[in-house]
Parts: sequence; structure tokens; C-alpha cells
Amino acid sequence: MARLNWGMIGGGEGSQIGPAHRISAGLDGKFNFAASALDIDAAKGKAFAQTLGIEGDRAYGDWREMLAGEKDRADRVDLVTIATPNSTHFEIAKAFTEEGFHVLCEKPMTMTVAEAEELVKLAEAKGTILAVNYGYSGYSLVRHMRAMVARGDLGKVRLIKAEFAHGFHADEADADNPRVRWRYDPDLAGVSAQFADCGIHALHMASYVSGQEAETLSADFASGIPSRTLEDDAMLNIKMSGGARCRLWTSSIAIGRMHGLNIQVFGERGGLRWAQEQPNQLFWTPLNGRTEIIERGAGNLSPEADRASRVTIGHAEGMPLAFANIYLDLAEAISAHKHGRTADSAATQYPKAIDGLRSMAAIVAAVDSAKQQGVWVDARPPMLR
Amino acid sequence: MARLNWGMIGGGEGSQIGPAHRISAGLDGKFNFAASALDIDAAKGKAFAQTLGIEGDRAYGDWREMLAGEKDRADRVDLVTIATPNSTHFEIAKAFTEEGFHVLCEKPMTMTVAEAEELVKLAEAKGTILAVNYGYSGYSLVRHMRAMVARGDLGKVRLIKAEFAHGFHADEADADNPRVRWRYDPDLAGVSAQFADCGIHALHMASYVSGQEAETLSADFASGIPSRTLEDDAMLNIKMSGGARCRLWTSSIAIGRMHGLNIQVFGERGGLRWAQEQPNQLFWTPLNGRTEIIERGAGNLSPEADRASRVTIGHAEGMPLAFANIYLDLAEAISAHKHGRTADSAATQYPKAIDGLRSMAAIVAAVDSAKQQGVWVDARPPMLR
Amino acid sequence: MARLNWGMIGGGEGSQIGPAHRISAGLDGKFNFAASALDIDAAKGKAFAQTLGIEGDRAYGDWREMLAGEKDRADRVDLVTIATPNSTHFEIAKAFTEEGFHVLCEKPMTMTVAEAEELVKLAEAKGTILAVNYGYSGYSLVRHMRAMVARGDLGKVRLIKAEFAHGFHADEADADNPRVRWRYDPDLAGVSAQFADCGIHALHMASYVSGQEAETLSADFASGIPSRTLEDDAMLNIKMSGGARCRLWTSSIAIGRMHGLNIQVFGERGGLRWAQEQPNQLFWTPLNGRTEIIERGAGNLSPEADRASRVTIGHAEGMPLAFANIYLDLAEAISAHKHGRTADSAATQYPKAIDGLRSMAAIVAAVDSAKQQGVWVDARPPMLR
Amino acid sequence: MARLNWGMIGGGEGSQIGPAHRISAGLDGKFNFAASALDIDAAKGKAFAQTLGIEGDRAYGDWREMLAGEKDRADRVDLVTIATPNSTHFEIAKAFTEEGFHVLCEKPMTMTVAEAEELVKLAEAKGTILAVNYGYSGYSLVRHMRAMVARGDLGKVRLIKAEFAHGFHADEADADNPRVRWRYDPDLAGVSAQFADCGIHALHMASYVSGQEAETLSADFASGIPSRTLEDDAMLNIKMSGGARCRLWTSSIAIGRMHGLNIQVFGERGGLRWAQEQPNQLFWTPLNGRTEIIERGAGNLSPEADRASRVTIGHAEGMPLAFANIYLDLAEAISAHKHGRTADSAATQYPKAIDGLRSMAAIVAAVDSAKQQGVWVDARPPMLR
Ligand SMILES: NC(=O)c1ccc[n+]([C@@H]2O[C@H](COP(=O)([O-])OP(=O)(O)OC[C@H]3O[C@@H](n4cnc5c(N)ncnc54)[C@H](O)[C@@H]3O)[C@@H](O)[C@H]2O)c1
Ligand SMILES: NC(=O)c1ccc[n+]([C@@H]2O[C@H](COP(=O)([O-])OP(=O)(O)OC[C@H]3O[C@@H](n4cnc5c(N)ncnc54)[C@H](O)[C@@H]3O)[C@@H](O)[C@H]2O)c1
Ligand SMILES: NC(=O)c1ccc[n+]([C@@H]2O[C@H](COP(=O)([O-])OP(=O)(O)OC[C@H]3O[C@@H](n4cnc5c(N)ncnc54)[C@H](O)[C@@H]3O)[C@@H](O)[C@H]2O)c1
Ligand SMILES: NC(=O)c1ccc[n+]([C@@H]2O[C@H](COP(=O)([O-])OP(=O)(O)OC[C@H]3O[C@@H](n4cnc5c(N)ncnc54)[C@H](O)[C@@H]3O)[C@@H](O)[C@H]2O)c1
Repeated sequence: MARLNWGMIGGGEGSQIGPAHRISAGLDGKFNFAASALDIDAAKGKAFAQTLGIEGDRAYGDWREMLAGEKDRADRVDLVTIATPNSTHFEIAKAFTEEGFHVLCEKPMTMTVAEAEELVKLAEAKGTILAVNYGYSGYSLVRHMRAMVARGDLGKVRLIKAEFAHGFHADEADADNPRVRWRYDPDLAGVSAQFADCGIHALHMASYVSGQEAETLSADFASGIPSRTLEDDAMLNIKMSGGARCRLWTSSIAIGRMHGLNIQVFGERGGLRWAQEQPNQLFWTPLNGRTEIIERGAGNLSPEADRASRVTIGHAEGMPLAFANIYLDLAEAISAHKHGRTADSAATQYPKAIDGLRSMAAIVAAVDSAKQQGVWVDARPPMLR
Repeated sequence: MARLNWGMIGGGEGSQIGPAHRISAGLDGKFNFAASALDIDAAKGKAFAQTLGIEGDRAYGDWREMLAGEKDRADRVDLVTIATPNSTHFEIAKAFTEEGFHVLCEKPMTMTVAEAEELVKLAEAKGTILAVNYGYSGYSLVRHMRAMVARGDLGKVRLIKAEFAHGFHADEADADNPRVRWRYDPDLAGVSAQFADCGIHALHMASYVSGQEAETLSADFASGIPSRTLEDDAMLNIKMSGGARCRLWTSSIAIGRMHGLNIQVFGERGGLRWAQEQPNQLFWTPLNGRTEIIERGAGNLSPEADRASRVTIGHAEGMPLAFANIYLDLAEAISAHKHGRTADSAATQYPKAIDGLRSMAAIVAAVDSAKQQGVWVDARPPMLR
Repeated sequence: MARLNWGMIGGGEGSQIGPAHRISAGLDGKFNFAASALDIDAAKGKAFAQTLGIEGDRAYGDWREMLAGEKDRADRVDLVTIATPNSTHFEIAKAFTEEGFHVLCEKPMTMTVAEAEELVKLAEAKGTILAVNYGYSGYSLVRHMRAMVARGDLGKVRLIKAEFAHGFHADEADADNPRVRWRYDPDLAGVSAQFADCGIHALHMASYVSGQEAETLSADFASGIPSRTLEDDAMLNIKMSGGARCRLWTSSIAIGRMHGLNIQVFGERGGLRWAQEQPNQLFWTPLNGRTEIIERGAGNLSPEADRASRVTIGHAEGMPLAFANIYLDLAEAISAHKHGRTADSAATQYPKAIDGLRSMAAIVAAVDSAKQQGVWVDARPPMLR
Repeated sequence: MARLNWGMIGGGEGSQIGPAHRISAGLDGKFNFAASALDIDAAKGKAFAQTLGIEGDRAYGDWREMLAGEKDRADRVDLVTIATPNSTHFEIAKAFTEEGFHVLCEKPMTMTVAEAEELVKLAEAKGTILAVNYGYSGYSLVRHMRAMVARGDLGKVRLIKAEFAHGFHADEADADNPRVRWRYDPDLAGVSAQFADCGIHALHMASYVSGQEAETLSADFASGIPSRTLEDDAMLNIKMSGGARCRLWTSSIAIGRMHGLNIQVFGERGGLRWAQEQPNQLFWTPLNGRTEIIERGAGNLSPEADRASRVTIGHAEGMPLAFANIYLDLAEAISAHKHGRTADSAATQYPKAIDGLRSMAAIVAAVDSAKQQGVWVDARPPMLR
């Protein structure tokens, strides 16, 4: 398989998520980093692109330039990653999708549900891939959980406990720090802070693993640091499409928690527990049985898990390799698309525009519920009701 | 100090909690097991009492007989433990308190809030001790958490996460098993199942550790096994008296969880994490610092923790020793009472009737809220509003 | 069953191990604490005995007085615990055994192999019980490991890894502290410090669990604090009677380790891992299978484990309950002895004089080997060669 | 910085270690995969190279061809990785070094100490880099341990406990499996099996972290599966150059252990514990203090640790990123070499030929000692005595 050409918008020098994308996209040698518009500052973006080995004429100053420059090339980029601030995702994703590019968009996909619906429809109309980077779904054992649920190991799923807790915004003295403050300011961050930023990963994972979608929800938001307008802690109860109840907690004031993205799934025939901080072990307890430790790389897991596993058992794989699995999937999907063949079914596990849409609807619903003292509200996007 | 005389009602042969009380009361040699009415079956209770070394004339057939037999003895029991089924607690506790006995009552203290208020007032009027067995509060490191919060190590407490999850009622095939079924039948179990039985321990601990009481709450109840009328899973959001938000989850269908009574307390200046299944380690993270592991028995902990610790560091202490700390406290309190002196202040940490009352009010409130889709309700007992 | 009478020598106020014995002996209500000679200071010992509820005439001033006072009583003590300093164990154990008392002796049983052999023979001749307090063998899951090995779950045991590591003697500034210094002074402590004091527990456990005895060994001793004559760190390789190799490490300078008494047993068909600091979980990996977590109290374990388990699953049991299992065994064994019946076979698991003898021989062998740069030496007591 | 050209020998399709090298070398975008001789089967190697994007004329059939083809190119490879079977390392490394290539050689560097000495001298003479892939030394927290020791946080190191244990060769039924059998056959594997293959990583790490080298050692080898000529389990005591004692255990029959490469380092002022399976946490206990959990990515660690850390705290990094740090170091070292500047001092942490040599000497010494019942032997290479 020849390497695919890859382009990146945002993720400039010093950005938080940029390096992770470059590591992940490059890791399996499927993508050649060919074009970019890395920075809000065109000159800085071009200079940085050079250090990353991008040819001068494809180190664009901004995304419009890049779209113009790429769209008619024979060797145009096969995939564009959008890693700019949230408010720009929609227009960039829309513009590239319209020109038939495949896109991997950082989360959140858009700022509104309407925009998200528009993108979903557009990508469908264009027949292009529009993926959203819920990157934690790339972990081998997350995929194994999903496969276990799908093949019925747990029976009907009754209950999902999901959390994403950290304590890095707990310092009141830091509340004025611009790096932190904007996140809790509705003018800059939108309607939700901690749930939209972190909790949504937990919700995506709950759906991803259980195969059930949020239908209605009740939310309680709190601001542990009282000067904050937006929530730094939130609890949701969610009724899922398959009948499960999901209980989701997220916090940024939980001092001592790192990036505690944890999930527990309880069904009729067993329970699963997994924690992002120790991602190479999965705890499985069959009904009336003993807890078993499932090791990543054990070799006899589901095809989905095996595909998402690279190094031998007992050797930790971490977050960059999970992210890389999203790119690995996309390489297969794009390649299949290009050659008009069907993609390997185990490689269709990446999060899609529809997931981005569902997340947007859930965020809006949670805010709505929280404002009304936790009244239950519909969590589905209008077009899926 | 001469040994105190101790009596027990309920906790007969084969009962679940009886042996724990006998181990705990006997453990420090403070109490002499002198009288009992152990079983609903008088003959069985007497026979069993004999094997436990109770003198024949004090192995009573039932509690009324015991009350009559004991009340006028010079060496009458100094403390009566009530470990009978819930519905009998009120009348037994009332009868013994009226005659001036000190009482340790199993939880729940009563079946109604009104009964609980009556007992609180009665014990106050009589000047007797009426303790309630939230035995997990006896753990050394639980007391250390409480001391840390009280002395300000955490600053203001913002958030409490409490859970009590197990999976031992998850088997649908077992739902008809009489040993399990009665617990989910409102006629036998009352208004709440899992929250009243287990979740209430987590709520007690949240209050115990934080020094804050439940003020209002919103509850979501679920029945993972649909044939159940009462809840086997519950989630509560609780606004606490000192401004903290408490998020409490309890479940009996969480396959793979043992008796996961866990608590996390997050304040302005640090966070604490503790789990009942590994009770000899406490995780403390000061704001902007590293997580530290506090070991039970380290010797430089709070006086409350030191008092509740018996064996050298590195040697696990378990639940029976936690329970025994309740008895150790009571021995000191009763002895002080007897001799008209003030009890050692570190020995007043046992859970009291007022806690039993608050629990009853919270259970009623939770049921009430859950029936109304999670509307926020007052969680305080009427007499404390 | 009527309570047995119990007596204690040593373990006075402020002693390290005394309280653990009293808690453990009293815990199940099988023993009545009837007589004592608790302290090297007769007056202190008597006064303390009073506070523990011993009748005045049985609060003896020293063990000779106690022997004289007890030996002809009808209600004489059924069991004598010896918890005095090491150098006195032999003469006390010998004197009481000669008079037909059952004895539980603290470890090490004697100061020399010859003394130990004498005691073994004497107890055999007298037909009395002479137990030695390797109390960690009382843990429920330790007994389960032993049962698993015995019934063949592991196949032939190939390898045993045992450790007992702590860091409480690591402070050079403390090396002159008399509380610590005597332990490394051959005049006071004998031929070995850390191995004789702690490592020997690990060796006992290795034998206890595997059912194999030390045959030959090679030892390497080190003094991390150079001023010490005796070792504060030791490593042994041991060839066991059933063909297994045992690798045993013990240390008192391992800062950060608490009382890390850990054991791993690897056989043809599976491996076991257990740690004293988290004693309620046992990790079992069948060959080519997944690691399973065996919980104490699961209810379907071996009869030996079930017998040694008191509280419900998910509720930690700690060291005092392990110790108490030694007493529980002894109660059954003594009672059977008294009534001329056969003891419950699951109650014969307590460590015996022969184990005390084997330990003495192993200590002497280890010292011998270490002095000769790790040459392999016979580890068996002469009478068992 | 322009990308460096990278070449690979061995590591063909289906090889164990090949993919890890490609991931690691590619991960940071420092190397361009330019040339290869991937397979013992020339045609297979060329075909596979194509799929990896190597230009046709640089997809060589064997290493001699590659040497010939590369040595005179202006854009010749800057670094050659040797990932062929052990017996070929020496001649390949020698040939490339002689032509002035920088080399990263898989471990073991050679088959004999003499060969290793020759390579060390040759690379020195040529002024080229000859690195050896003790890849576990690339973990961020391993480097932090090294930095902590070097800057004196532990004071003098007294004791090192190192292990590398797994259970993947424990199945007797598998002993005839050719994939396993050759490893225990002296004709194919050399003088040592488990120690040379795995234990040596633990020894390298002990030296790497402590800054002390093996001086003398005593070894005990065992074959848990008796039909094996070479050891599947080994225990070493090692006297280190700075006075520390190192105790090292390695096993391939430890069922339930994955790739348990663990290290504990105990000094005068504190102790460290780290485990390869959970590489993102380091446990540090200062003397008389509490254990602290040091998280990778905390941001305030040593420069060496920070440099070796890529993703944000709380997000696991695994083995491929540790390996990648070796390549990152090499990129910096080669680039500095090329441009005649001094390399960033934090980038000189990669394992070098001298380490490969020391390992060879230690393997020979261990075999020697084990054959003589554990007699202490010199562990240093002749040229360093
Ligand atoms: N999936 C995840 O786990 C995850 C984690 C972190 C961030 N994110 C998402 O990634 C996105 C970026 O977040 P970040 O934390 O890296 O932000 P950041 O502020 O650290 O970096 C943003 C980068 O985008 C560049 N940029 C801004 N506007 C641009 C434009 N118009 N054209 C080109 N470049 C532009 C900036 O110069 C900067 O280099 C956000 O949407 C965020 O929500 C996702
Ligand atoms: N604090 C805790 O953690 C905890 C744990 C378990 C049980 N409990 C409480 O302990 C109480 C007992 O629970 P259990 O599980 O041991 O019940 P159980 O059914 O196992 O035992 C109840 C015992 O009480 C005896 N009994 C019943 N009625 C009696 C009467 N009128 N007079 C004398 N004896 C009588 C029965 O014969 C039996 O021996 C309950 O209130 C329960 O909620 C508390
Ligand atoms: N099994 C274990 O795990 C374990 C643990 C700790 C101690 N021990 C053993 O227990 C024994 C006691 O150790 P310790 O740490 O409690 O010692 P300690 O010094 O703390 O206490 C010894 C007690 O014995 C009393 N005593 C001394 N000589 C006496 C005599 N002749 N007659 C009566 N009383 C006398 C002392 O007054 C003191 O009360 C030792 O043999 C030790 O090895 C075993
Ligand atoms: N550092 C580590 O942690 C680690 C781990 C595993 C293996 N290794 C080492 O890596 C090396 C390779 O081990 P492996 O397990 O990948 O072996 P392998 O048998 O799985 O693969 C060896 C590869 O080398 C190729 N090869 C053989 N001879 C060759 C030649 N003359 N020229 C070119 N290619 C040739 C083979 O075709 C094959 O593709 C060994 O030295 C081993 O000790 C190191």
C-alpha cells in the first residue's frame, strides 16, 4: 500500500494536541505528512512546517490557502486533520468536505447542533469520511469491551458508570490565569465547560462500548470555584437507547485525579472495568464468577482488539498508540474508498460525524437540564428523534 | 477499668451481623458478654447463648424477658446491642432507653422519621447513650480523614464522591430466591432497598468525614432487574450544609464490585481517596503537590486515628477492628458516664442517634425525589429544619 | 463448648506483640483469659493483669510462680502463650510442657537447634501440643494457597519467591538508638538479625504453602548500614524437598516497603501471588489462562480457607484475625485432646514445634553459608536428616 | 533540522522486534526510513521494504549489498539499526562501523566478550556512535530515577532489587515447540537463556539507574522444566562498583507475570519503586516520610525525564515511546556529530557499546558462577578490570 498524503490545520508549535496527531498519524507509516496550515500566525506556521519536513509550497499560511492549493493537485492530501480552536471547526470541516476531502476533526465537531447536523448531511451527500477525534476509543481494550458487549458476553447492559475527573483546575489562585479562565467564561467557551471538554469523552465511550445512545438525561452542574460561571463539576443520569442507565461524572476540581477516564459496564451476565490511566488491563467479572484480568496483547482477544494492539503482552501501550489506531482505521477506510473496495470491517471503529453530532446534542441537553434543576430532557439531535 | 457488662438482642446463630458484634465487643476486653436474647426462636436463642458462655439465667428467651430480668440487677448490662430485623429496632430501643440502658442499635435505627425523632428526644431526656452502628466509621483512616477535614487540611470541602457498590444481587435467576427477594419487596423492606441498605452507609460516611450534613437532594433510582419494585441502583446529588456537593452512587447489580464503599473528598487545598476494600491506605494529594500514601499505623497521624489503630504499620486491619472501635468508644463513653467524668474527646467519634435520624430523613427524601423524576427535596428531619 | 482457660507469659504493658495475642485469643470467645505472668517486673505484671480482668490469685509475678500455681488446679490453664524475649522461650516452654501444658510459643522457638530438637521430642513424649506462632499462616488465603497446592491445582511446584521487606531500620541516625541497635548486635540478638527476625516468616510461609521443606541453601547477607555486625538484608536460594527452588529476600533497609511479606508460587499448571499488605485478594493464573482474583470470603474456597474466614466478602480481614485463626485451631485441637476425640482435620493447620525446629536449623545454615561466601549447606535439623 | 536517513537490517515481516523499531524511529519525524535489508530471504525483504515506502534501489537483498550500496552515497543512511538474530550482530556492526556508519545494535551486542571489546574499541577509533538497544532505559521515569540518584536524592545507594519475570515458557507441552525450544538449546542460544535474554535488561537498568556497575557476582541458575539444558530461572547477587548490593531475579516460568521488569532502589535517604507494566507512576519514599507517587508528565521532573515525556500527565505512555526516546537521543547525537557541535547533554542517555560489553561480561560471569555452585566471580570485562 502506497502511503497516503496527510494534511493538518492547527496544531502549531506549542499547541496541546498537535504533537499527538503528528505522532499518531506517522506511527504506522501509512501517512506522509504533505501539507499544513499549522498556526493562526501564518509565518510561524510555515516556519514550523519546514522543521517538520513539509515541502515549502505545501506549508500554507492558512486553511483557505491550503484548500485552494490542494484541491486540484493530483497528489492532494487524502486526509485533513483539523486541530484548531473549537469555533473554527465547522467552517473548516465544511469547506474541505465540500471539496471532497476526508476529514478528521477534533472534538467538539461544531459549536451548535444545527451545524453538526449540517456537517453530517454534507459528508453523507459527498460520500466522504468525516471522523471526529474521540481518540480514547482507539485503545485496544476499549475495542475489546465494545466487542464483548456486541457479541453478547454481558447479556443486556443494565448500567454504565463513566467518569472523567481531574484536578488541574482546582486552584482558586489560578482561576484568573488566562490559560484556565477562558474555559469557564461562556463568551469564550460556550455553554458548558467541564462537561463539554472532558465529560463528553466519557459519554462517547459509554455509547461506544455499550452500543447504546443517550436518549434522555438529567444533569447537575456545580462550580466548586464559585467565581466561575460555567461548571467545573457535573453529574449526569442518562437513559440509553437499549435500556441501560448511564451515570456519568466529570470534574476538573478533583485534586489527585489525573485524567481519570474510567468506565464500568454492568450487564446481565457480567461486569467490565477499565481505566484510561492503566489502559493495558481490563477487569472482567462473569456473573457468579471470579474477576479476570484481560491483558492487552494476549493474542486471543476479539479481532477488533487484536488489530488495535501493536507490542507484545506485558509491554504498556499508551495514548499515542490509541490515537494512532484512529489513523490506522482511517488509512484503511480511505484506501478502500479510493480503490472502491469494502474496508476491513474491523477497521470501521473510528468515531464518526454522527457521534460528533450526538455529543453536541447531549451537551446542549445537559446545559438545558442543569439550568432547570435536573429536569429530564431529550438528549437526541432533532434529526435522530 | 473493670469490664462492662454487655447484652445482645438478635444476632442469633447463622445471622449475618451477629458474629461481627461479638468479635468486636470482645476484642479489647472491655465488655463481658453477660446477657442475651439472641433469636426469634427462644429455645434456639437460649441454647446458642450457652455455647457463647452466657449464664443460664441471663440467656433470655426474648427481649421483653431480658428487659424485665436485667433492669433491676445491680450488675445489669451496661450496653445493649440490637441486631434484630429492622422493623423491631424502634420498640426495642425505646423500651431499653426508657429504662436507662445505653444502646447500640443496628442501622436503620427505625422505620420512620417520626420514630427516629422520638428516639433522639427520648435518649436526650434520659441522658443515655443511643448509638447507631455505622460501623465503617470506625476505621482508623476514616477517622483520620475526618480529622484532616476538621483541622483544615483541605480548606473548604467542595465536593464529595461516595459509593457503595456490589454485584451480589445481579443474578436474575436469583431474583426469586427468598433470601434476596424480600429486599426488593416494599411490603418487607420498606420504601427503599439498595439506598436504604447500603447507600446510607456511604451517605453517613460523607457526613462523618466532611462534617457537613445533607440539606437537599435529588435522586434517580433504577431497577436493573425489571421485576423489582424497589431500586437496585441509585444515584443521588446532595447539597451539603457546608456548601459541598455530594455525588453518591450505590448499586447491588455492579458485577465485580465487592463491597465497594469508597469515598473521595475534594477541598480547596487537597483531595482524599479511600476505599473500604483496602482500608489501610489513604491517598492524599495536596493542591499542586504529589499524591501521598498515608499508611494506617504510621504513628504520626491524628489522635483520633491513632486511637483507632491497633497493630503495627504494614499489617492490615480489617472491618472487625473498625467495628471494635465503635465498642471501644462506647466503653469509654459509658465508663465516663458511670463515673460522672468527661469522656476522652477522641472517644466520642461513634455514630449517634442523631445520625440515625438524619439517615432516615435522607432515605425518605431520596424516595420522594426519585418518584418525582429527581426533583430537589429537603433531606433534613423536620426537627432539624 | 465451654471456654478453655488461657494463660500468658510476657506480653506486658507496652510490649509489641502482647496486645495482638490478647485480641486474637479473645476474639472468638473460645478462651477465657485466666492466668498470667505478663512482665519482667512482677509488680507491673500483676497490676496490668488486674486491668485485664485476671483474678488476683492468678495474676502471678513470674512464670515459675505461675507454673507452681497452675499445675495442680482443676481449672488450670488449657493453653499457655509465651511472648517473652527469645532467650527465655526454651526454659519456659520446656517447664510447661513437662507439666503437660499445651503451649503456644512465640518465634523463634529457641536459641539453638539442639534446644529446639529437645522441645520437639519432649512435646512428642508428653503428647502435648507445642505450637509456634508463625501467625501469618493464619490468613484465610494463605490456607487457600496451601490447599490449592496440596490438591494439585498447580501441579508440581517449581519455584517459590518469598519476601519480607521493610524499611524501618534504614535510618543511619537511628543506628545508635537502643530500640534498634540491639537487633544488630550479636551479643543480644544472636547469630542473625533480619533473616532470623523477619525472613524466617517468609521461609515458614514458603514451606507452609508449598508443602516442601528446606533441604540445602545458599545465603548472601549484607549490612546496608556498615556499622552493623549483623545483616540488615539477606538473599537466600533454597532447594526444597519436593524439587522446587525457593528464592527468598528479606530486608530492613528497603525504604518505602511496609511489612512486605509477599509470596509467589509457580508450578507446572499455574502461578499464585499474595501479599500480606492486601491479604484479602489472591491472584491465580492457570497455565495459558487469565489471572483471576480470588477474594477471601467468596464462599466456595477450600474448607481450610472457609474455616479461617469470618466476615462477608468485600470486607477486609486483617492480621489480628489471622492470628486468631491460630487460636481457633488450638481451641479445637485442645478440646479434641481433652475429650479424646479426633480434631477437625481443617483445624490442624497451625504451625508446630517441628516448624520451629526447622526454622532454627535454617537460620543456623544461612549464617553458616553467608560466612562462607554463599556455599551450599544442609538446612535440615540433624534429627531430620 | 532536516530529517536523518535511517536504515534497518533484519526486522522483516513477522519478526518480533522489527515493528517496534519502525514505530519508534518514525515517531518523532526525525528519521526518514531510507534503506533496508530486512530479511534473511532477500526477495521477501525487498518486497516488504516496498510496502514500507523504501525506494526500490535501496531495498537491498542483504546487508553486504546494503553496505556496498550505501557507503558512497551522498545521502547515505545516518543510522543503521541491526535487528537480526544474535549471532550476526558482531559482523554486521563491525562492517558498518568500519565504514563510519552510526549503529544501533539490538542486544546482545555480540556473542563473546572479546567481540564486544573489539567493537567498543573500533567505534572509539572511528569516532562513531555504537548504541545498544536496552530500550527500557528510554522510559521517562527510568530517566527520572537515574537523575534522582545522580543528584543525590537517595544519598548513597545501598541496595538494588531488579527483576524481569514472565511465564510464557512455563508450559512443558510447549518445550518441544521450536519457537521456544531453541532458546534453551546451547547450540542455538549460547551459554545462557533467560538471563542473557531478559535478565540482562534488569541488570542494565540496575546500572543505568544507580550509576554503578557490576563488579563481582554470584549466580544460581535453575531449569524449572527439567529437560532444558539452559536456565529458565536465575537469581544473581551482584556487588556494584559504588558499594551497593544488587539482587536480580529473572524467570520465564513465573506463570501470571507478564513482562515484570521491576526495579527498586534503596539508598540512605529514600527508596524508589518502578514497574515496567505501569510505567507512568514512580513510587518514591523519602527516609522517615510518606510514599509519594511521581507521575510521568508532571512537568517539574528532571530535565532528562521531561525530555523523554511527550503526552500530558494522566495519559499513559508505553514501550514504543520509551524506544522512541532512544531514537530521539540518537537523532540529536548524530546531528551534533554531523555539524561538529556538542549534543544536548540530556540527550546522551542512550545505552552504548560499553554497556553492551559490560552485559556480555556479566552473562559470561553468571554462567561461570552458576556452574560452580554460586562462587563469586569477577563480572567486569577484561579491558575494564
Ligand atoms: N481529543 C482530545 O482528547 C483533545 C485534547 C485536547 C484538545 N482537543 C481539541 O483540539 C483542539 C485544539 O486544542 P489545543 O488544546 O491543541 O489548542 P491550542 O490552543 O493549544 O492550539 C491551537 C493551535 O491551533 C492554531 N490555530 C488557531 N487558529 C487557527 C487557524 N484559524 N488556522 C490554523 N491554525 C490555527 C494555533 O496557532 C495553535 O497552534 C480543540 O478543539 C480541542 O478541543 C482535543
Ligand atoms: N451495620 C452494618 O453494616 C450491617 C450489616 C448487616 C446487617 N445490618 C443490620 O443488622 C440487623 C440484622 O441483620 P442481619 O443481616 O444480621 O439479619 P439476620 O436475618 O441474618 O439475623 C437476624 C437475627 O435476629 C434474630 N431475631 C429476629 N427477631 C428477633 C427478636 N424479636 N428478638 C431477638 N432476636 C430476633 C433472628 O433469629 C436472627 O438471629 C439489620 O437491622 C441489618 O440492617 C447492619
Ligand atoms: N510472630 C510475630 O510476628 C512476632 C512479632 C513480634 C514479636 N514476636 C516475638 O514475640 C516475642 C516478644 O516480642 P516483643 O516485641 O513483644 O517484645 P517486647 O520487648 O516488646 O515485650 C516483651 C514483654 O515480655 C516481658 N518479659 C520479659 N521477660 C519476661 C519474663 N521472664 N517473664 C515474663 N515476662 C517477661 C516484658 O516485660 C515485656 O512486657 C519475641 O520472641 C519476638 O520475637 C513475634
Ligand atoms: N531490546 C529488546 O527488548 C529486544 C526484544 C526482542 C528481541 N530483541 C533482539 O532483537 C533481535 C531480533 O529478534 P527478533 O525476536 O525480532 O527475531 P525474529 O526471529 O522475530 O526476527 C529476525 C528477523 O531478522 C531477519 N534476518 C535474519 N537474518 C538476517 C540477515 N542475515 N540479514 C537480514 N535480515 C536477517 C529475519 O528474516 C527476521 O525478519 C535479537 O537480537 C533479539 O535479541 C531485543
